[in-house]
Amino acid sequence: MKNFIGIKEMSKEEILEVLDVAKRLDNTPNMERRKMMDGMIMTSLFFEPSTRTRLSFNSAAYKMGLDVIGFDNPDVSSIKKGESLRDTIIMVSAYSDVIVMRHPIDGAAKFAEEVTDCPVINAGDGSNEHPSQTLLDLYTLKDELGSIENKKIAFVGDTKYGRTVHSLSKALKMFNGEFYYISPDIIQIPDYILKELDNAGIKYHKGNNYEEILKEIDCLYMTRIQRERFENIEDYEKVKHAFNISKSTIVGKCKEDMIIMHPLPRVDEISIDLDDTKYAKYFIQAKNGVPTRMAMLSLATGIVESTAKKKEKDYELIENKEIVCQNKKCVTHFEETKNKVARRSYGDFCYYCNKEITK
Amino acid sequence: MKNFIGIKEMSKEEILEVLDVAKRLDNTPNMERRKMMDGMIMTSLFFEPSTRTRLSFNSAAYKMGLDVIGFDNPDVSSIKKGESLRDTIIMVSAYSDVIVMRHPIDGAAKFAEEVTDCPVINAGDGSNEHPSQTLLDLYTLKDELGSIENKKIAFVGDTKYGRTVHSLSKALKMFNGEFYYISPDIIQIPDYILKELDNAGIKYHKGNNYEEILKEIDCLYMTRIQRERFENIEDYEKVKHAFNISKSTIVGKCKEDMIIMHPLPRVDEISIDLDDTKYAKYFIQAKNGVPTRMAMLSLATGIVESTAKKKEKDYELIENKEIVCQNKKCVTHFEETKNKVARRSYGDFCYYCNKEITK
Amino acid sequence: MKNFIGIKEMSKEEILEVLDVAKRLDNTPNMERRKMMDGMIMTSLFFEPSTRTRLSFNSAAYKMGLDVIGFDNPDVSSIKKGESLRDTIIMVSAYSDVIVMRHPIDGAAKFAEEVTDCPVINAGDGSNEHPSQTLLDLYTLKDELGSIENKKIAFVGDTKYGRTVHSLSKALKMFNGEFYYISPDIIQIPDYILKELDNAGIKYHKGNNYEEILKEIDCLYMTRIQRERFENIEDYEKVKHAFNISKSTIVGKCKEDMIIMHPLPRVDEISIDLDDTKYAKYFIQAKNGVPTRMAMLSLATGIVESTAKKKEKDYELIENKEIVCQNKKCVTHFEETKNKVARRSYGDFCYYCNKEITK
Repeated sequence: MKNFIGIKEMSKEEILEVLDVAKRLDNTPNMERRKMMDGMIMTSLFFEPSTRTRLSFNSAAYKMGLDVIGFDNPDVSSIKKGESLRDTIIMVSAYSDVIVMRHPIDGAAKFAEEVTDCPVINAGDGSNEHPSQTLLDLYTLKDELGSIENKKIAFVGDTKYGRTVHSLSKALKMFNGEFYYISPDIIQIPDYILKELDNAGIKYHKGNNYEEILKEIDCLYMTRIQRERFENIEDYEKVKHAFNISKSTIVGKCKEDMIIMHPLPRVDEISIDLDDTKYAKYFIQAKNGVPTRMAMLSLATGIVESTAKKKEKDYELIENKEIVCQNKKCVTHFEETKNKVARRSYGDFCYYCNKEITK
Repeated sequence: MKNFIGIKEMSKEEILEVLDVAKRLDNTPNMERRKMMDGMIMTSLFFEPSTRTRLSFNSAAYKMGLDVIGFDNPDVSSIKKGESLRDTIIMVSAYSDVIVMRHPIDGAAKFAEEVTDCPVINAGDGSNEHPSQTLLDLYTLKDELGSIENKKIAFVGDTKYGRTVHSLSKALKMFNGEFYYISPDIIQIPDYILKELDNAGIKYHKGNNYEEILKEIDCLYMTRIQRERFENIEDYEKVKHAFNISKSTIVGKCKEDMIIMHPLPRVDEISIDLDDTKYAKYFIQAKNGVPTRMAMLSLATGIVESTAKKKEKDYELIENKEIVCQNKKCVTHFEETKNKVARRSYGDFCYYCNKEITK
Repeated sequence: MKNFIGIKEMSKEEILEVLDVAKRLDNTPNMERRKMMDGMIMTSLFFEPSTRTRLSFNSAAYKMGLDVIGFDNPDVSSIKKGESLRDTIIMVSAYSDVIVMRHPIDGAAKFAEEVTDCPVINAGDGSNEHPSQTLLDLYTLKDELGSIENKKIAFVGDTKYGRTVHSLSKALKMFNGEFYYISPDIIQIPDYILKELDNAGIKYHKGNNYEEILKEIDCLYMTRIQRERFENIEDYEKVKHAFNISKSTIVGKCKEDMIIMHPLPRVDEISIDLDDTKYAKYFIQAKNGVPTRMAMLSLATGIVESTAKKKEKDYELIENKEIVCQNKKCVTHFEETKNKVARRSYGDFCYYCNKEITK
């Protein structure tokens, strides 16, 4: 059995294993596949709403033969009547063969893993990790481009706040390649991500014009510029329409086999006139969430045995009630945890939410 | 594959086909029937709550062997975070073998049909159509009266606003018969419905007293007088208790084989002392929603092949960005549609919401 | 077929039968058990939220092979648009093989039983009954202590308002034993419960210190002190931390085979350092909800035949429109009931909500 808490915890081999299993399951006849996990129960705990992720996991569950229980609306759940996340997780473990959890608090998934023997799949914990999204992005890249190695990918839109962009960058650095971050200056990629790329020897570029690189890139990964991320509305107004790709700005101006991806939902950054072009892969990408999540469910429960080499531990684990994570949204401030710290050569990090702990 | 968007789009043969398939499925042993659609997924998108319709569709789905995903509460869904209906429908199509959708906007179902290849069943789109309700009404009439042809039916209550009354009238005009609209003057049947009946050569009567026709009619179709429809509360107060049938007003005063129907929920228009009389068919009618919806699911997905002659197109289709539907609640004002117009000899109609477009 | 409305209506034999069937089903291989109710539909009507109970029933349903429809949030349900509980129950009976209902109104379950032929399981009706909780408590006692007869049980915390404490006391009085009610004076066990124990010849003690009896008891049944029950916050503040058991107050101070139970959720009355001791049985207790509810579902539907002797009727049933239940939260004030009264030698009781009716 195996948990999926974050991309950060996965080796390259483990990532490729998920993609392989996903492909194999996608090619398995439906009625045969549905026998694989028949009789098992997936518990789907959405402490904040996320229709797309929830429906995709539910669909994957049914296509593997699982039954599904859970909640999609914490407001009507007795959970919010003061029960600790610890007790909720222990309780539902009694009913479940696998837990899929979405939670607004950073590090909630890591904490859940710690209090139960039931496999846990993180479906997004605050601003921390959302591994199934990154894995389906990788699946799409591999499926559409033939390989993930050495690809030139431009991330266009909000590269500062977009969790998808950060996670995908961290995953892709294991596969070489060259990255372009195309954003207005005020929402450009944070330096700490670039430092990680430097460390991995990855080439990257920053800019604010995607047109001049269209002929270079294999993938144009668009993201939405989200109003709620901005501290003042003027800044948002300045950049909100920074990028709007359409047939007229793309067709004939890019490599013939370039693909356009988007984690969805889109607002106006991709015109619907692109939807029926060969470049548009964002709906296929959404669809790929199903086989990717089928693979995660089957690997998590051991129905498909994982043989990939695990990532080596790159930190020393410190339990120290004195060291407090400075991230106010970290699970250590909400639950009775052991305040574990992951000590690496380059700093101390919260074991749960992965944020750096400074003195 | 086949969509169910509105009764308006169905031929008499198609309607009868649904009723026949429904009867056949109702007589099929449960465990055999549940194999018919085993392995398929129904996605149930309720953009507004409707417990009765939703539970009935879910029950029909399970009795056919489908699994069900979806949402019943748009407030907790990420849908309301600005995703277009277009993208939501395309996205869920990736997970679904059939989509059942309830939506508050007129014409939403027609628009959904346009953007996906997945079969769509309209479970109510604003004030426009709700075909499964009308089909279960017809099923009940046929099942209880032996036939739908040439029946005398009195619609009692609110015949002005009641969508069920209008839809059923439009369907029944294909089966001849004679109709009575029994309402207080301020909530009487609209003229445009009567004009349609005139065109079809159907006899009808208006009145405000049901007692004098009880001996004539085959079916007393009661409806609720809904407070929320009235612009001023005084009007509502005047008519709210206009009709309250009970044992004392019905038994011995109607044809022995007359049936009482009601789309439910009732308030006080039918006394509970009628519930255990032979006339009361409103709960059987609700129950008939299940076989009717089983038939719709199996015909929509092609699991049961439709062989009925389709309705002939009775309009010329115009795509004209200049012509704007005047119905403010029409989907053309919320989504990027092609502003299609259905031009008929007697006028232009919005292709989506069916409202007349005047110059 | 059989309804589960309240412990009050069950004979000792019926209670033991549920526990036996639960144990048998728990030992039945999953795939075999799932064939037992395959093709049946459980309708889960939660008119108020209760995640724990709902998930446990859903899990039990799937482990028996049932499909599940229903709602968990009355706010989004059309139910609240004025439909009577009577009509809702009759309507869903058309779709259901068994109904599981949670309702905020006292006596709602008894009323539901009266209007449908479909088996009804009460999952909590206001402050009245919640039989599946009591049955899972009894299952845990029997499973962990070997028997339920002649046990010494201390109820610690709020014994005044805790419905679980009252129900379990009433059930346990059939199995002899000796009870300790350990509470601050202002939230001590009500006299009418003690009178019932007196009548049954059961020994009991009241106190406010659990430490001095730890060496005596077989089970320490902890309960939460709930703020919302108190009329003034000062009273609550005085007692809220009355009991907080932990390793240091328990280990070495109790009988070696004493068990700790709790209906959950807990707040701070049980320290998490007790969770991994051999005494802690509260999570096992929660887990036992699944086999207990599997037994209730199978007995309710007749899939497992009940052969236990029923409880003898201990009252005369009076239908009298003149006698009105004085409990303002009783279903008789919300629905059109027959105002039935259960007349016993020692008083008149509302047939629905079980509260005494005084002249």
